[in-house]
Amino acid sequence: MLKAVPQFKVQPAEKPGQRMRSRLLDAAAAQFKALGLTDVSVADIAADAGAFPSQVTYYFGTKEALFVEAACREMLYLARDAEAASSHPKNEHDYIETMVRSVIGAPGLNLFVEALALAHRRLDLQPLVQRTFERLDAESDRALRDHRARQRQSPGNTAVHAHRFWVIALGMGARGGATGESSEFLASEMLALIWGGAEGPRVGRQQTPSKGER
Amino acid sequence: MLKAVPQFKVQPAEKPGQRMRSRLLDAAAAQFKALGLTDVSVADIAADAGAFPSQVTYYFGTKEALFVEAACREMLYLARDAEAASSHPKNEHDYIETMVRSVIGAPGLNLFVEALALAHRRLDLQPLVQRTFERLDAESDRALRDHRARQRQSPGNTAVHAHRFWVIALGMGARGGATGESSEFLASEMLALIWGGAEGPRVGRQQTPSKGER
Repeated sequence: MLKAVPQFKVQPAEKPGQRMRSRLLDAAAAQFKALGLTDVSVADIAADAGAFPSQVTYYFGTKEALFVEAACREMLYLARDAEAASSHPKNEHDYIETMVRSVIGAPGLNLFVEALALAHRRLDLQPLVQRTFERLDAESDRALRDHRARQRQSPGNTAVHAHRFWVIALGMGARGGATGESSEFLASEMLALIWGGAEGPRVGRQQTPSKGER
Repeated sequence: MLKAVPQFKVQPAEKPGQRMRSRLLDAAAAQFKALGLTDVSVADIAADAGAFPSQVTYYFGTKEALFVEAACREMLYLARDAEAASSHPKNEHDYIETMVRSVIGAPGLNLFVEALALAHRRLDLQPLVQRTFERLDAESDRALRDHRARQRQSPGNTAVHAHRFWVIALGMGARGGATGESSEFLASEMLALIWGGAEGPRVGRQQTPSKGER
């Protein structure tokens, strides 16, 4: 599936330094997704990656910087995977619906929301977040244009702008992660909002008491 | 102005315990807005409120619980103030625009985004967040219905659903707080999204390098 969306290129990690950096980011993402920023230590991440804690400091500076970088990378991976899952849609409705259902409730989206909240207070980490949004917006824009070209549609007539797609996804992720509302409800609300604007019809509300489904 | 929106009732703090609780929440909100969760101590908040640190523990349990409760209360105050600012609009367009411009970039919105991210990992704090959203949605729904009744409009014909209004505001707040995009740009994007859905026309983009305007 990934071959269908070469636009989300992951840089090959060829040099030893890049390989270690990438291993640390993988270990960090897995641990931070499971436990959050507070309950994970630099030592835990280093151990998982077969590295020394000093290597985390060397490559990333602080645990917070590693958190934000790992979360931004996971967000780009999630976007790539969502595009891949949507790469053979029946139509644009199906394309957007598959994108939404791939993203809402995904651990990578919730991690990214946490990274954004952290970056509110850390001006030094904001340039990385800015670059992540630029890439997210640009790649999603391109994926939608490619999709329309494959479907022989006009590129501009029903432009769902990537910027707004991700803003709504973030709002849904921030809310759903903190309330336990079901991914099904949030995805339906997001689709209604994309197609109908804020004034579209309401969808049925479902609450789930457990976090199991997210 | 507040008399115009009695729907956002703030409970009177009459009993001594309620007064102290309220003073601690005021002090917490001010300090957390200025410095964030990590850089504020329970002792700082207690000192500001003329209390002992043990009183914070007595009323709220943990610093995190105090953070989330203070942020939820600030969010409800912000919504009340935004409704008040919008209480004499020329028309519904003006009503929604004033609401958006009152909310986007407000410190209370950014604090609430941080509280949501914190509650992702704290199941014990999620019921408070759920109640805050229920109140936010219900009060905003009511404020819009009241506005329409005053304007002798049909209550249902152009329903901007409160739930979606706040989801978009949260997404914009999460993004803008972490990238430094200007409140002006984010508010324009939010208005375009409310009126045109994800497919409405793009607005011009402005970046501000400093946090001063937010």
